[in-house]
Amino acid sequence: MLDQSYSDAIWQRINLKTKPLGSLGQLEAVAHQLALIQSNAKGDLVTNIDIDHPSVLVFAGDHGVAAEGISIAPSDVTRQMVLNFLNGGAAINCFARANQVELKVVDAGIIEPIEGENSDLIVQRLGAGTANFASASAMSHEQVKQGLALGEQAVRDAVERGCDLVMFGEMGIGNTSSASAIFAALSKSSVSDCVGRGTGITPEQVEKKIHVVSQGVSRCLGADVETVLSEVGGFEIVQMVGGCLGAYHARIPLLVDGFITSVAAYCATLIEPDCREYMLFAHQSHEQGHRLVLERLNAEPLLDLSLRLGEGTGAALAVPLVKAAAEFYNNMASFADAGVTV
Amino acid sequence: MLDQSYSDAIWQRINLKTKPLGSLGQLEAVAHQLALIQSNAKGDLVTNIDIDHPSVLVFAGDHGVAAEGISIAPSDVTRQMVLNFLNGGAAINCFARANQVELKVVDAGIIEPIEGENSDLIVQRLGAGTANFASASAMSHEQVKQGLALGEQAVRDAVERGCDLVMFGEMGIGNTSSASAIFAALSKSSVSDCVGRGTGITPEQVEKKIHVVSQGVSRCLGADVETVLSEVGGFEIVQMVGGCLGAYHARIPLLVDGFITSVAAYCATLIEPDCREYMLFAHQSHEQGHRLVLERLNAEPLLDLSLRLGEGTGAALAVPLVKAAAEFYNNMASFADAGVTV
Repeated sequence: MLDQSYSDAIWQRINLKTKPLGSLGQLEAVAHQLALIQSNAKGDLVTNIDIDHPSVLVFAGDHGVAAEGISIAPSDVTRQMVLNFLNGGAAINCFARANQVELKVVDAGIIEPIEGENSDLIVQRLGAGTANFASASAMSHEQVKQGLALGEQAVRDAVERGCDLVMFGEMGIGNTSSASAIFAALSKSSVSDCVGRGTGITPEQVEKKIHVVSQGVSRCLGADVETVLSEVGGFEIVQMVGGCLGAYHARIPLLVDGFITSVAAYCATLIEPDCREYMLFAHQSHEQGHRLVLERLNAEPLLDLSLRLGEGTGAALAVPLVKAAAEFYNNMASFADAGVTV
Repeated sequence: MLDQSYSDAIWQRINLKTKPLGSLGQLEAVAHQLALIQSNAKGDLVTNIDIDHPSVLVFAGDHGVAAEGISIAPSDVTRQMVLNFLNGGAAINCFARANQVELKVVDAGIIEPIEGENSDLIVQRLGAGTANFASASAMSHEQVKQGLALGEQAVRDAVERGCDLVMFGEMGIGNTSSASAIFAALSKSSVSDCVGRGTGITPEQVEKKIHVVSQGVSRCLGADVETVLSEVGGFEIVQMVGGCLGAYHARIPLLVDGFITSVAAYCATLIEPDCREYMLFAHQSHEQGHRLVLERLNAEPLLDLSLRLGEGTGAALAVPLVKAAAEFYNNMASFADAGVTV
């Protein structure tokens, strides 16, 4: 648990800034949370929030369930998009560049590995795609444990590189199905409420997707996190759960992206409830189940732009808002500084 | 009117990017609008949107109506905040700095002028504050005409300095009352729907504010824009109306801030309906009347952070989203470029 003893002093700093009380809305809550996290990490009230090295880790993995035809694209596209990330051509590359965010791609288990060395690629494969969860366990318990540890390690390494705000993105054809199944099984929500159109499937495919997700959920409804992940999880999702725990252990803020990343964050809070205190939420996506996940997490996202792309795009887009919150906390004048009548 | 003949080609460029169709939500509409504006200005389809020199002009003016005690602060605070802007200590300074936005302060008519030269201050005063519109016309028709021309000139000068995205902010104790009155008179909306808590007045003050605004509105309900501005306007608001027309004439996009700026934008569309095509909307503020104004303008704002500060803060915060839209339009790979299966 974060030590709340810094809280009043942080609010006081915010409230003495030259602005009407509360007039910066959600940004005030962001500044307070960042200052509380960094004050705890430092063991002293921080008067300067450091958000200097944001980093996004894009975890990629393939899903056996993609064979069911419930996505807009075949599994080949996962690897093609990983190459696109490494070549700087995808949406997440554009937004990371625009907002000075470090980007690393993690191969958590796509079907066919990328050949050759690449300093932007972290290879920590749990296998060549998961098994099709419609009819079998997606992965073993051993793979789950290994994935949690590897995801955590990736965050530790980012922190070693100077990262002070971490984000996760994901790529994996079929992964909204996996995320919907994980969330339905853990939250005991109705499957049809948790399943959406992904990146754009037809109403018929949505029906099929609900059926397939239900098959997986039926094997693990109400089970513990590791069991649910082994039954219906994805390699990239498991590693992101480990990453969330890694941010908590490293005591750095985590800016959560869309539906799939939020499901990973939800899993992490079930393993370690205190990690919720380190989470900020970037956006409300267009994917149906996302609202439910955010409700469970009691989260108020910063953006609502009808994004449904994944890759960490929403998180990268929200970075300037987080930096703006830090900037006003750090450098805005107080009424006394500026000689403004209170 | 913008020539729409570029529209299909712009959508085609967007739709061939390596992402599911429409998956960047509102950012796709922003990219389309920017590309359409710049293609029209250039007379050729642009494949590269330039948003390199965003600029915010913060117009300040005082309001005679502040004497009615319907604000959280006395008129002294207008000038104190202008000095705070010039010293770099206000919220807008922080956000402009964080997002590399040029900031200029315009004295449109505060009570007591700022002494000395300052390269960040543009002095174009219409007077030493308006008259109290509860009992008299706020300003003359001549002042309105002069203000429109001066506001337009300020934008022309910004464009001379390289500005390719303009924003307006405002400071003026009492100016939500003026903006509510202008909007109620022009849109014939009920005064009580148009009046909000400003930066934080009490329920009793809100009652008083409704009464005072009604007094002004009763003299000009349904009148033309210039008459309404002379009866209940503010010097900074009139100049922002001119600024909106200036952005239109200079053919550059205008990123509209909160309630008061949106009312100025609404006035500009009544004078010149085509200027609406050049407007983007930064945020939905916490001020009650803002939603009504945005509805009249058929606007979908980018952010909704419960801000109620003014100064152009919402606009400055939205700049990275506008730049991100340009970045994906300019530099994201197409399916063909990246060898991704469509």
